[in-house]
Order: sequence, then C-alpha cells, then structure tokens
Amino acid sequence: MQLALRDDLDTYLIAPDPGRATLTRMVKGHDQTGAEMDLSVVEERPLTIYLNSREIVTAMTIGDYPEYLAIGFLRNQGMLADSDRLTGVDYDDELDVVVVRTADVTDHEEKLQKKTRTSGCAVGTVFGDMMEGLDGLTLPQTQVRTSWLYALSAKINRTPSLYLEAGAIHGTVLCHEDRPLVYMEDVGRHNAVDKIAGWMFQSQTAAEDKILYTTGRLTSEMVIKTAMMGIPILASRSGFTAWGVEIARQVGLTLIGRMRGQRFICLSGETRLVRDADPAQQGDDPKAARRKGATA
Amino acid sequence: MQLALRDDLDTYLIAPDPGRATLTRMVKGHDQTGAEMDLSVVEERPLTIYLNSREIVTAMTIGDYPEYLAIGFLRNQGMLADSDRLTGVDYDDELDVVVVRTADVTDHEEKLQKKTRTSGCAVGTVFGDMMEGLDGLTLPQTQVRTSWLYALSAKINRTPSLYLEAGAIHGTVLCHEDRPLVYMEDVGRHNAVDKIAGWMFQSQTAAEDKILYTTGRLTSEMVIKTAMMGIPILASRSGFTAWGVEIARQVGLTLIGRMRGQRFICLSGETRLVRDADPAQQGDDPKAARRKGATA
Repeated sequence: MQLALRDDLDTYLIAPDPGRATLTRMVKGHDQTGAEMDLSVVEERPLTIYLNSREIVTAMTIGDYPEYLAIGFLRNQGMLADSDRLTGVDYDDELDVVVVRTADVTDHEEKLQKKTRTSGCAVGTVFGDMMEGLDGLTLPQTQVRTSWLYALSAKINRTPSLYLEAGAIHGTVLCHEDRPLVYMEDVGRHNAVDKIAGWMFQSQTAAEDKILYTTGRLTSEMVIKTAMMGIPILASRSGFTAWGVEIARQVGLTLIGRMRGQRFICLSGETRLVRDADPAQQGDDPKAARRKGATA
Repeated sequence: MQLALRDDLDTYLIAPDPGRATLTRMVKGHDQTGAEMDLSVVEERPLTIYLNSREIVTAMTIGDYPEYLAIGFLRNQGMLADSDRLTGVDYDDELDVVVVRTADVTDHEEKLQKKTRTSGCAVGTVFGDMMEGLDGLTLPQTQVRTSWLYALSAKINRTPSLYLEAGAIHGTVLCHEDRPLVYMEDVGRHNAVDKIAGWMFQSQTAAEDKILYTTGRLTSEMVIKTAMMGIPILASRSGFTAWGVEIARQVGLTLIGRMRGQRFICLSGETRLVRDADPAQQGDDPKAARRKGATA
C-alpha cells in the first residue's frame, strides 16, 4: 500500500502517532492452524473525568489526549459552554483521572445535578440532553466541493494510523476544504469526536467552514453531536440510519455516507454540494483501508 | 450470493426479519453522479425503559423485541437478578416505553438509587458496576470445536438479515454447538446483546453450553457483558482490544477474533479449543458479508 507522501502529512496539525508505545500492546494468540503469533493490539483504559469537584463519567479510551477528551466530552454533553473560562485541566496518569476546572463553578454544579438525576445513558451519550439543544438550531449554508471530499478521503485513507497498524479502532478527522487538520482515533467513535471538540474548544477554532470525516456510522447521535459542535458538513465511509438522515435535514447539515473510492451518497444538503470532480477519475481506496471488520 | 438453505434457517428459534416494514424506511439520496436514488435504511428510535415506577434509560434502537431489550438491559446492568420474578412487561408502542415490573420492588429501588448517583455512563454501559461483578467470576471450562465455529460463521453470514438488506447495523447470535439459535440485530451492538440476554432470562436458557457470535469488536465491555451472562465462548468477525483479551483470560472466557473465511485468531482459551476442522477446507465468506463499513 502507498502511504501518505510527506506533503500530505505536513498538512496535519495533529496526526495519529501509531508508533507511540502506550497506545498498543503485543498480545499472543493462535491462528487457525494453531500457530502462535504476536499481534499489535490497541490499548483500552478507563479515564475518569471530573468537572471541578464532581465526578462525571468513566470513559474507556486508548489514552491519548486525555485533556481534549475530557473538555470535549463536557462540551458535547452541554456541561461546558463555549463562554466558560477554564482555569485548569489536570491529568493524573497514575490515577487515570482528568480534572477540568472552570472559573464559574456554582452554575454548573446545579445544572449538572439536575442532569445526573433526570437523564439516563445508552449507546454512548446522555440522550435526553442532546435532543434538547437542537431546537431552533440551523447550521450555516456552507458549500462543499466534491473535489475536497475525494481529496480528503484519499489523504485520510493513506495516513499512517492506529487503524492501519492494529485495527479495532475508529477515526474522526476535522478538515478544512481539502486539508485534514486534526485526526483523532479511539476505541469508541464518540471519544474520537469528543477529542476533536476538546481541541476546537481549547484552540477556539471556528466551526462554520469545517468538514468532519468519520469512519463510523452516521447514527442520530453522531449527527446531533456534529450539529451541536456547529460543523455544517459530515462525511463517512460507513452507512447511516433513517433518523440520522432526518435530523441532518432538519438542522441543515450536509450528510455524505458510504464514501469509498469514487462512490458516495449525499443524504442531505444536495444543493450545497458543488460537483466539481469527475467521479470516473477517482481511484479505489487502498486495500488496507477496506479491511472489513477492523472497525466494525 | 448464496443465501441460507431452508434447513439452515429452520435451526433458528428467532431469525432476523429484514422484510418487516417498521425496521427500515426508504430514504432518497443522490449518488456520486448526482443521480437520485432510493435507499432502504434502518430505522432508529428512542425506547425508554422503566423498572417499576422508575425511569432508567432511553436507548436508541431499531425497535424490534422491546421487551427483550428492556429485560436484557436491566439484567446486564445488574438491576435485575436471575432470581427476580417478573410480574409484567408492558410495551406501549405509541409512547415508546417499556415498563418491567418485578414482584420485589423495594430492594431494587435502593440499589438503583445508589447506582444512579455514583456511576457515570460512557461508550454504552454503566461502567463502574460492570467491573464489580467480575470479582471471583470463573466461567465453566466448556470446550468448543473449530468445526462448529466454521459452521456457525458460514450459516450466520448467509442468513438474510437487516445487515445484508440495509447495512449500518450490528448482529449478535446465541448459538449451541454448530446451531445458531437466536439472531438479534440493532444499531448499537450492546442492544443486540441485551436482547439476547432478555430472551435468555425470559426463556430460562442455560448459558454454560452456549457460544455468542457478534459482528462487533471485542472490547472490554463486550467481554465483560458476555462473561456476566455466563456464556463461556465469544467469537467475532472483528478485532479486539488488549484489555478485552486480558479480561477474557482472567475469567476463563474463550475468545475468538477476526473470524473470516478460514482464518481466525484465538486470544484466550486455546486449550479449550478442539481443532477438528481443516482450515484449508473452508470457503471464503460471501461477498456481501465482507462489505466494509456497513457495520463500522
């Protein structure tokens, strides 16, 4: 397989670091013939997130960028507003704990107490609260060129990553036009998105001209999360659910699914799509990026 | 593609019902050439689960078997013990609510209150409580023949399913020897497992001679859930995390990953594997079952 050219990698502000020792572990197994083999397998460890003095959640994560994960999780659950000022983010790698401190404590404690009592959790997010924020939300009518989508897909698929190294992981990439900027990976696709949200919060990055690319499915939760982050375009290699499509249309999010090789399907925002690329000129995905099940 | 023979389907107690109208919806999209197309897309709807008078969770689900999902969720979260007697399970399809009623209420209300206060939620499950139940758990040393694994994989891959019909969905199958018994699908892989747990609870099915097959990744949570259900063998088409492997070894769960065509990797329980099949005699997976991303 042809990996990314140096130029492609240089466009990243944060690229995956598959060689980092703490993210994978060698594990012994036996193949179908009974032969012993050594495998590079992704790590997964608990990270407990505190907002000021309150324990919020324990997430299972590969363990990189714990600060971004914590900030992004709190931001995406509505426990941290864009106007909130952080006074500290402390990560203790022995206790696997991150404490996010805000200047204004009391407000959040109250909001939070209410949330923790009334909302349940399932399939990755605090559901009740997520739908709440959608009322009246309309995303900017940002156009997207199909040439950008093809270029992003080709670059991302060729970027050395934990997925290519060890599989069993999801990737999410924040992009601007045809340039991938921040590529986060994690065992749960929601964690990868939350790390992006944390990075955007800390760097005060504008959302209205960005594209979010994910390897995961476009479920209602993924669509809601992207919309709440203010990002107007969401693209994925994977499929989609009917409700994900419905919500995307409701908030004016451009939704692209099953993006592989020259193929893709636009489920929402067709009028904002600038079809400037000839699909027939696009190459196939590299074989390694097509490995079924590695992210299933 | 060759679908299952009548004989294969007859072995199921519950098989997928991809033709059921409520599980999919026709959605319009545009392909890469701009051509309009109609797609069959899986539904996703909220289901709120009550235990007696208490609201527990709102889960996103395709919507089939809501009663099994509710019972299985409560069982797998430790809110329902095998010894509990159910006095009613009421599903209201207009309100999207299931109420599970138990004979003995007070006990659970107290346990639950404590749980709701102290545990957070992330990547699909109430984490703190799940690890708790593992202390001292050892699964029965059930042997598994590789001929069964190959036969199961071939039958399941050829079974007409929502996955083959619409993609973007996970499947989990409860099996006995080479026979698939109950095949559940859902947008979240945890829901599919919970529906199996609900069916086992209601039918009082023994776990110690069963095999659980899943299309999803073998993360710590999936391994813990299977172990807590008492099922000693877990197999998947997909990859695995280091901690998933570690927990499987700790509780004596036989763990098989990356099971595709003739290939598989045994990560735990090699000594309980009876290698009675010749890998070279096994065929490839049908092409439709290999579609990358449909479940990613």
